[in-house]
Amino acid sequence: MNLDVLVRSENKPLIESILLDMPAPSLNDNTADLDRLSRTMDHLGFSPVRIQPRKMDELVRKMRACMVAPFGEPVPGERRTGSRSGSYAEEDGGNFCFRVVAGCTGTNWEILDIAAWSSDASVFGFAVDLGSTSLAFRLIDITRRKIVREMLVVNPQVARGEDILSRIIFARDREGLAALRDSLVHACSDAMGKMLVDSGISARFVYAVSCAGNTAMSHFFWGLDPSNICREPYIPAANTFPVVSAAELGFDFLPNALLYLFPNVGSYVGGDIVAGVVAAGLNSSTEFRMLIDVGTNAEIVLGNREWLLACAGAAGPALEGGVVERGMQAAAGAIDKVRIDRRTLEPDFHVIGGGKAAGICGSGLIELVAEMFSSKILNIQGKFNTELNCPRIRNTPEGPAYALALAYQTDDEQEMLITEIDVGIFLKSKAAMFTILSLICRKVGMSFDDLKSIYIAGNFGNHVDPEMAVRIGMIPDLPLEIYHAIGNSSLLGASMLTCDRTVLEEAERVRSMITYVELNVNVELMNEFRGALFIPHTDRKLFPSVVLDDE
Amino acid sequence: MNLDVLVRSENKPLIESILLDMPAPSLNDNTADLDRLSRTMDHLGFSPVRIQPRKMDELVRKMRACMVAPFGEPVPGERRTGSRSGSYAEEDGGNFCFRVVAGCTGTNWEILDIAAWSSDASVFGFAVDLGSTSLAFRLIDITRRKIVREMLVVNPQVARGEDILSRIIFARDREGLAALRDSLVHACSDAMGKMLVDSGISARFVYAVSCAGNTAMSHFFWGLDPSNICREPYIPAANTFPVVSAAELGFDFLPNALLYLFPNVGSYVGGDIVAGVVAAGLNSSTEFRMLIDVGTNAEIVLGNREWLLACAGAAGPALEGGVVERGMQAAAGAIDKVRIDRRTLEPDFHVIGGGKAAGICGSGLIELVAEMFSSKILNIQGKFNTELNCPRIRNTPEGPAYALALAYQTDDEQEMLITEIDVGIFLKSKAAMFTILSLICRKVGMSFDDLKSIYIAGNFGNHVDPEMAVRIGMIPDLPLEIYHAIGNSSLLGASMLTCDRTVLEEAERVRSMITYVELNVNVELMNEFRGALFIPHTDRKLFPSVVLDDE
Repeated sequence: MNLDVLVRSENKPLIESILLDMPAPSLNDNTADLDRLSRTMDHLGFSPVRIQPRKMDELVRKMRACMVAPFGEPVPGERRTGSRSGSYAEEDGGNFCFRVVAGCTGTNWEILDIAAWSSDASVFGFAVDLGSTSLAFRLIDITRRKIVREMLVVNPQVARGEDILSRIIFARDREGLAALRDSLVHACSDAMGKMLVDSGISARFVYAVSCAGNTAMSHFFWGLDPSNICREPYIPAANTFPVVSAAELGFDFLPNALLYLFPNVGSYVGGDIVAGVVAAGLNSSTEFRMLIDVGTNAEIVLGNREWLLACAGAAGPALEGGVVERGMQAAAGAIDKVRIDRRTLEPDFHVIGGGKAAGICGSGLIELVAEMFSSKILNIQGKFNTELNCPRIRNTPEGPAYALALAYQTDDEQEMLITEIDVGIFLKSKAAMFTILSLICRKVGMSFDDLKSIYIAGNFGNHVDPEMAVRIGMIPDLPLEIYHAIGNSSLLGASMLTCDRTVLEEAERVRSMITYVELNVNVELMNEFRGALFIPHTDRKLFPSVVLDDE
Repeated sequence: MNLDVLVRSENKPLIESILLDMPAPSLNDNTADLDRLSRTMDHLGFSPVRIQPRKMDELVRKMRACMVAPFGEPVPGERRTGSRSGSYAEEDGGNFCFRVVAGCTGTNWEILDIAAWSSDASVFGFAVDLGSTSLAFRLIDITRRKIVREMLVVNPQVARGEDILSRIIFARDREGLAALRDSLVHACSDAMGKMLVDSGISARFVYAVSCAGNTAMSHFFWGLDPSNICREPYIPAANTFPVVSAAELGFDFLPNALLYLFPNVGSYVGGDIVAGVVAAGLNSSTEFRMLIDVGTNAEIVLGNREWLLACAGAAGPALEGGVVERGMQAAAGAIDKVRIDRRTLEPDFHVIGGGKAAGICGSGLIELVAEMFSSKILNIQGKFNTELNCPRIRNTPEGPAYALALAYQTDDEQEMLITEIDVGIFLKSKAAMFTILSLICRKVGMSFDDLKSIYIAGNFGNHVDPEMAVRIGMIPDLPLEIYHAIGNSSLLGASMLTCDRTVLEEAERVRSMITYVELNVNVELMNEFRGALFIPHTDRKLFPSVVLDDE
């Protein structure tokens, strides 16, 4: 993917690589080297300048080493600010010329490196999504706005607890917290180090590490006590984090990088959502948009550049394949697409990565249920039509089931059966999802028709077919073109920051704008939910596009 | 000494210890703990707030620990900003009460520690003079503005070179620099650690370490390449230094302290002089003042709050006792006061610390020469009157000499002889001093009479008797009350900063105001110098108060 499309403000890079030519030190101007550098940067508008105390000696030595270097030609297309500004033009061909790399922290410009005038101007950065289950990395060529490489690894903290709550309990004492933090930092270091080696890029050219995660993950990452996140009144230790050198958080192998961590809204809405909102552009849109992020929970944000409303609900597990018997994430071996022949009721399916089926992911389940419904294997209540004469429908001790894959099609040589119980569990998830979407719109007096764009994030979003999701009544029956799959929106927002410093402000604005809405379990919600348990819904007027054969 | 007299701006402490009471986190206000702290500090005028990334977890835990603490009574006399401000008064008796210690960095307020409301409010700091020869430390009770303890240790770098130039050469490679820096940091840590133990004060109550040194010492201390200090065009690596946590510079045993290093003017005028100027108040004076700092060099600053002129000259060594045969610093064993009976020509002298004499220090030499002159042992050219019939005057292979101490009076049981050569060397130093003072005044078209206060700094200043120094023509013949001995002015300036944050701005103002004047060896200087070689001077009109018996 070319990141160009995502950078909304041109010419406001997070990391600037600037060619400077300044008069060399002389008896007439006895400003000290670093003060001279700060002064020049200041004149060019990079103000105030900050230099890490531990980097000062290295930077002076590099400046001095560049003083005797031959005067090279400016690289085409590069900003050669020194001479252009006029202030330093007198000494054209002067002999204090070098490239300086500076990073924006939102309040300062931090000098990150100095190199010879003729050196390669490449500037790289990492975007990181600190997911509870997986850590996603993207190595970005910031200069060219290109993705160099991507990597996904299992979050090693899973070993200390699958769910975030048990990890928070594990981290209650300092040793537990340190262990969780260390495992996270090591996993990130390993992944980033490997990506650099595989790409043949030196770690010293990495100038930004942009991270986003939910509130608990942010606390683990920073080494902050997370225990109050899950204890009334649910107040995190910190929602905003200073920009620091990556080495300061333990990434010693990245000597020149600044580290950014997206701010959290509160215990329930983390930096991953803030990054996702920026990625989906809710914060800059005049029309109403919605972001649906299906992870362990479903997290929804609704709004535009004037206001943003967020809520969360336990709609996720089944959609990510986590609850049904043969469920799995949308990874190699997962059935993600299903079609059922209306006449023979024989299935046809697609396995991610080809080969034999290991399980079924969320989008596969959606398609399976939609197709079983359209084929009348399921009625609108999600019950099996056991009167059908079809070899794929079995009677099992757990009730009726549909044999989606036969023994020869699966990796464990066991038939893959989807039972009525599985369907029931799944329908609860889809009902929860629709209920949440419905309630959040009603909170602000909107109807679904007011929505101009709906972004479906997460791995789920990449695989789901909106038409199928509409058919089962999981998402509103709107023109399909308003649905957009944007993949890992947290990673996308983090990636945007590496190229665009205005994202720093935008993230802070989003953070302070988002209002979190608690969806209380009340009568309204239960009525809504009960109607949504049907396929597609008891109120058929909500899904006019879903036409059954007998209608 | 009580530091009260030195704090010019009341109620602007560098370190603030504030009692806060804020509403505890609640469902109505879900601001995260650290953001809540920052917001409250901001409301109270401490803005912007910064927290070291590595301290965040510790501070949150301390805040939370204070949340359940019983509500104590405000300590009398303490600023109880929270309730007084009005903004947080609603929840009187609220349960989020603690003491916060914050330090001013000039641009930010850094949260240094959090403690229980009822905890001891003591705030301590160190002032350090990083001298080339000696390191001087002062432990200061900032709350009470009292000096707790002082200590002087030999600068361990002396082992790598007595003079600063050989140390700069030693530090040209990174290993040499690291070795010099490490020895300095260790010596400082050892001294400060010992002072704390001896005073029964915990290191965690130290919140400020305020250091001043010459430019080379500042570079060694910070770990900056000093080689360009002594290489044309003599441009230091840095003249200004950020405020950092003491731990960041290697003082891990001071977990809560900020470290301040006074800025340098340039290679020749360091932070020690800047601190001295602030200590002597030149920068705030409407009348003309002069600071004379006699160390390895004599460094002179002249001016007032409008302008400051500095120059340096090699007038020091003899005055610090470094050049003459039996010379020594003004320490135990040094003869610092001398009287000679006009009739018998027998001496009477005082030894610092009592006991036998080990040598003679600068002030002793001044008195000796003044008394030998008044007793007509020396003529105005500094030559011995060998026709005097006096057993104290000897003929030695190096020419005539005066036996100041007899064998039984010295620690090595050798007579202490001061030869005509010693006197000649000394007179060159005193002539250099007077010449510098004379030239710097002439540079700005001033006469000595325009000076309203002259501050003599350094150990030398503490021992010298201005009347004697005038008598030999070393310093201008002005009313004696304008001369003030202020001791170690660098240490004094550094001490003032620990109690008064306006010194931060003042030091920066002084730094940018000082103009360094190079005293070129030219005809004017040589003529001036030649006249000053006499006792007191060839131009007797310059020293009207010096009356010889035969006049």
